[in-house]
Amino acid sequence: MIWNVYLSGEIHTDWRQRIIDGAEQQGLSIVFHSANTDHDASDAAGDVLRENESGFWRDHQSSKVNAIRTSTLIKQCDIGVVRFGDKYRQWNAAFDAGMLAALGKPFITLHDDSLIHPLKEVDGAAMAWAETPEQVVELLKYVTSK
Amino acid sequence: MIWNVYLSGEIHTDWRQRIIDGAEQQGLSIVFHSANTDHDASDAAGDVLRENESGFWRDHQSSKVNAIRTSTLIKQCDIGVVRFGDKYRQWNAAFDAGMLAALGKPFITLHDDSLIHPLKEVDGAAMAWAETPEQVVELLKYVTSK
Amino acid sequence: MIWNVYLSGEIHTDWRQRIIDGAEQQGLSIVFHSANTDHDASDAAGDVLRENESGFWRDHQSSKVNAIRTSTLIKQCDIGVVRFGDKYRQWNAAFDAGMLAALGKPFITLHDDSLIHPLKEVDGAAMAWAETPEQVVELLKYVTSK
Amino acid sequence: MIWNVYLSGEIHTDWRQRIIDGAEQQGLSIVFHSANTDHDASDAAGDVLRENESGFWRDHQSSKVNAIRTSTLIKQCDIGVVRFGDKYRQWNAAFDAGMLAALGKPFITLHDDSLIHPLKEVDGAAMAWAETPEQVVELLKYVTSK
Amino acid sequence: MIWNVYLSGEIHTDWRQRIIDGAEQQGLSIVFHSANTDHDASDAAGDVLRENESGFWRDHQSSKVNAIRTSTLIKQCDIGVVRFGDKYRQWNAAFDAGMLAALGKPFITLHDDSLIHPLKEVDGAAMAWAETPEQVVELLKYVTSK
Amino acid sequence: MIWNVYLSGEIHTDWRQRIIDGAEQQGLSIVFHSANTDHDASDAAGDVLRENESGFWRDHQSSKVNAIRTSTLIKQCDIGVVRFGDKYRQWNAAFDAGMLAALGKPFITLHDDSLIHPLKEVDGAAMAWAETPEQVVELLKYVTSK
Amino acid sequence: MIWNVYLSGEIHTDWRQRIIDGAEQQGLSIVFHSANTDHDASDAAGDVLRENESGFWRDHQSSKVNAIRTSTLIKQCDIGVVRFGDKYRQWNAAFDAGMLAALGKPFITLHDDSLIHPLKEVDGAAMAWAETPEQVVELLKYVTSK
Amino acid sequence: MIWNVYLSGEIHTDWRQRIIDGAEQQGLSIVFHSANTDHDASDAAGDVLRENESGFWRDHQSSKVNAIRTSTLIKQCDIGVVRFGDKYRQWNAAFDAGMLAALGKPFITLHDDSLIHPLKEVDGAAMAWAETPEQVVELLKYVTSK
Repeated sequence: MIWNVYLSGEIHTDWRQRIIDGAEQQGLSIVFHSANTDHDASDAAGDVLRENESGFWRDHQSSKVNAIRTSTLIKQCDIGVVRFGDKYRQWNAAFDAGMLAALGKPFITLHDDSLIHPLKEVDGAAMAWAETPEQVVELLKYVTSK
Repeated sequence: MIWNVYLSGEIHTDWRQRIIDGAEQQGLSIVFHSANTDHDASDAAGDVLRENESGFWRDHQSSKVNAIRTSTLIKQCDIGVVRFGDKYRQWNAAFDAGMLAALGKPFITLHDDSLIHPLKEVDGAAMAWAETPEQVVELLKYVTSK
Repeated sequence: MIWNVYLSGEIHTDWRQRIIDGAEQQGLSIVFHSANTDHDASDAAGDVLRENESGFWRDHQSSKVNAIRTSTLIKQCDIGVVRFGDKYRQWNAAFDAGMLAALGKPFITLHDDSLIHPLKEVDGAAMAWAETPEQVVELLKYVTSK
Repeated sequence: MIWNVYLSGEIHTDWRQRIIDGAEQQGLSIVFHSANTDHDASDAAGDVLRENESGFWRDHQSSKVNAIRTSTLIKQCDIGVVRFGDKYRQWNAAFDAGMLAALGKPFITLHDDSLIHPLKEVDGAAMAWAETPEQVVELLKYVTSK
Repeated sequence: MIWNVYLSGEIHTDWRQRIIDGAEQQGLSIVFHSANTDHDASDAAGDVLRENESGFWRDHQSSKVNAIRTSTLIKQCDIGVVRFGDKYRQWNAAFDAGMLAALGKPFITLHDDSLIHPLKEVDGAAMAWAETPEQVVELLKYVTSK
Repeated sequence: MIWNVYLSGEIHTDWRQRIIDGAEQQGLSIVFHSANTDHDASDAAGDVLRENESGFWRDHQSSKVNAIRTSTLIKQCDIGVVRFGDKYRQWNAAFDAGMLAALGKPFITLHDDSLIHPLKEVDGAAMAWAETPEQVVELLKYVTSK
Repeated sequence: MIWNVYLSGEIHTDWRQRIIDGAEQQGLSIVFHSANTDHDASDAAGDVLRENESGFWRDHQSSKVNAIRTSTLIKQCDIGVVRFGDKYRQWNAAFDAGMLAALGKPFITLHDDSLIHPLKEVDGAAMAWAETPEQVVELLKYVTSK
Repeated sequence: MIWNVYLSGEIHTDWRQRIIDGAEQQGLSIVFHSANTDHDASDAAGDVLRENESGFWRDHQSSKVNAIRTSTLIKQCDIGVVRFGDKYRQWNAAFDAGMLAALGKPFITLHDDSLIHPLKEVDGAAMAWAETPEQVVELLKYVTSK
């Protein structure tokens, strides 16, 4: 069995790559998926369509194009990993976690212990809270191994 | 028909009361639901159970007790209103929005235009973005009137 | 048992009223629901929110506000009646029919025989094709009577 | 991951081929599906069964045979593209869009700006509105690329 | 709690009335539902619509009108009772049983022991096999009592 | 795309083989599935478990073993074909048709015109009524061809 | 809003009554449901049907009659409370917990701390672990209060 | 077609291996899945995360990590086999059976006849009760063979 793992959240550190590399080194049977992690490209996802004077509608147009990808990948994943960093609002990560929870998909959160209290509702719905990408790899190894 | 509206998010201003009062003044056929909005009581929701030395597990225990209430009310509502203020992380509001989206429940966001960009994914899944509680009342009046 | 019947489509003739009146005269145990049938009010449903220079986004904003109402009522109805007149595009009526079909809700189409061929896919998914509101009342009487 | 894209709607111009060719040139990992786009063959889909004097029942018989194919492909697709031209009623395209919406499948509409107002409900449920097949290819490239 | 019980099948004996009377005598909190049990009226359910030369299409038209009622009541019931007599094909009863099974609704079969072997698949999916209406009343009393 | 077609019903004539052979000759991309069509083996499906004095429980035990296979295949098929012959009760065929209908799976019935009236409810839920296996092959060819 | 709470498990102590009494004293808006808690009556639930020589089939017959009640009440409840005592196998309680989990219903477990380790999988899926009926009442008060 | 079979329950005897070996000898088209059957590793599944002084929370942390694996495999299996031995509480096996039942997955129980009475609710929801692994192999051979 090949497991589909969706990596959601913060795009400013190398956590995705460390998980992907770790899984590869361990030879895990996992395919990883993500939203487009290029911030500028993501903001411009809808710009191929009509131009908008309003910032709200430009964002709206792009976020819906991005959602074609993300909602599909979330619905098809087996496991989610949701990362919260110490900067920015990251409401999209919490939004993805809410989708995962409502769809009955197990997910792992990844964040420092300084974020325990503000993330308590998200952690309450998660199957595990990890503090490092290496812990996530260990969990994925345990969960997906024969 | 009586409509069930779930009010999610920020608990430091009177936005809930203004929506509830406005709906009452208009005679709308709506019952409003919310999480427990008393911050300290919410943090202590699980304290009736065993005591925990670890802050993580105390939060975990309480957040799951709170989720018995919130997940049930979200699954049973017809419409969600999700409010984001200018302070705090408010990841639980975005988490609720993700649940509403995955469950196919229409929801309205309520926030200032300073939050347009960080909320673009949430707004992209919403049916309307309002800037004042009074606009929300107008929308609810339009939507629920005979 | 009270039956919920959703009336979708054309708003320029009195077909809704004739069905509602007929059901009342027969004493049927039915509550009827509809989209807002005031054309101008429907087009302006989102105008309470921000103003839009672009016609596309004004329409978008209003149609999503209308959809809060219509998608909820369609999901909660027991039976749909979808009316096609001889004017206008009426794509929203066909769109509602597609939703009803995908949700497994039985629906009745109401249209002249001049529209048989272009409506063949919609009629193929319907449980009955009626040509007059009075036939619809007869069907509803048969279906909902003890 | 191979994406399944369902192409619905107008059959009189080469929009399907332009999307398929564009996707192939870009090397996208997409399989395209459609209803039978041969108009006469589609109208005759049920003629292998019994002959019907009534035009209504001949259409009915054929449209249900066609629906075996289309409803299956719509339920199994990841993304829909729904095209509206400037001629004919095209209620089947709007019907497909309604099915896609109710099934929670993201879809893109493709039409000229002259159709913005009559299509506002369909566009309101869509994730993007494109005006050319080339824009659709760009969106699909963005959405499906690694 | 009021229980909804759907009575499906044979219409030539008084089994429905005996169950309904028995439940009333026991004061059970049950509302009973059925298809139209008037054979001629049921065959003519669609005759208010267009006339059909073909027997197949007349039957088709009527059976779909009947299905508006029956499929709705089956989807909303808590328990089904499916009766097979010793005459006629009664494929509609077995069809209803298949719907109940696929919808996860518990159902009771009611038939003589001469039908055990041909009904083994239906009985295999049922929660109980009763031989008399009085046994059904006893089961309903047990199941629905406080 | 490979289509899964479930063949349900009568086991005394060669209709299954004629459909399978016809599909092979046409090179259709279809995998066919069926219940165990060996009547004695099917009746004995549960005999590997404990012996039963009661005919009812022997049948029960076997029919549930058979249902492990049939319910799984029905839930996973794309299209059903349900055959009714002129002998026996064949309630299992009608039961399978009810499951297909409730699961939203399109199905084709296959029977002589002498059975039109008793099968009207089943035909009403079907997407096509065929009278010969060769017609079924034609329909499958039309539906599944690129 | 009236909350439906399903009380599952051990029938040898007064835990159900203590919860029901506590909820009444607090004036909670809750209706409680249970399986038949009379052990002998439950074992005999199917005896109104045919007599069985085999103990297995007598149990089978009765447990399916009981399941008509329990599966319906579990599917309709908002919250489950699952009690494990220190005697007997109580596999039915764990089975109910599995159903609640798969249906996405929040549930509370009630057991002594001596059972923590053998119940870890059940507790892992629960929203809270209580040790006394009074704690359950406190949780229900918190969860269901306005 | 490849069938996915989930083996749940007791880990102290060689029943899993006997089923797997038997299926291989018969050349059955089955892939088997299980929870981690190493008792100590399973108890320590969450230890890679933070250390816990409380036994309850250590168990909680591990059981949720295990559930990432087991809930996914249960949701994706075609058939479950649930084994109860004569020692230990084995509530997790009954919990898995409840999940299988609620998800509509057919399952086979495997246990001695000494456990008939305490397992009557679980057996009542199962499709077969086997007493030896060899019987399970025979059932799987029958069910999955072409």
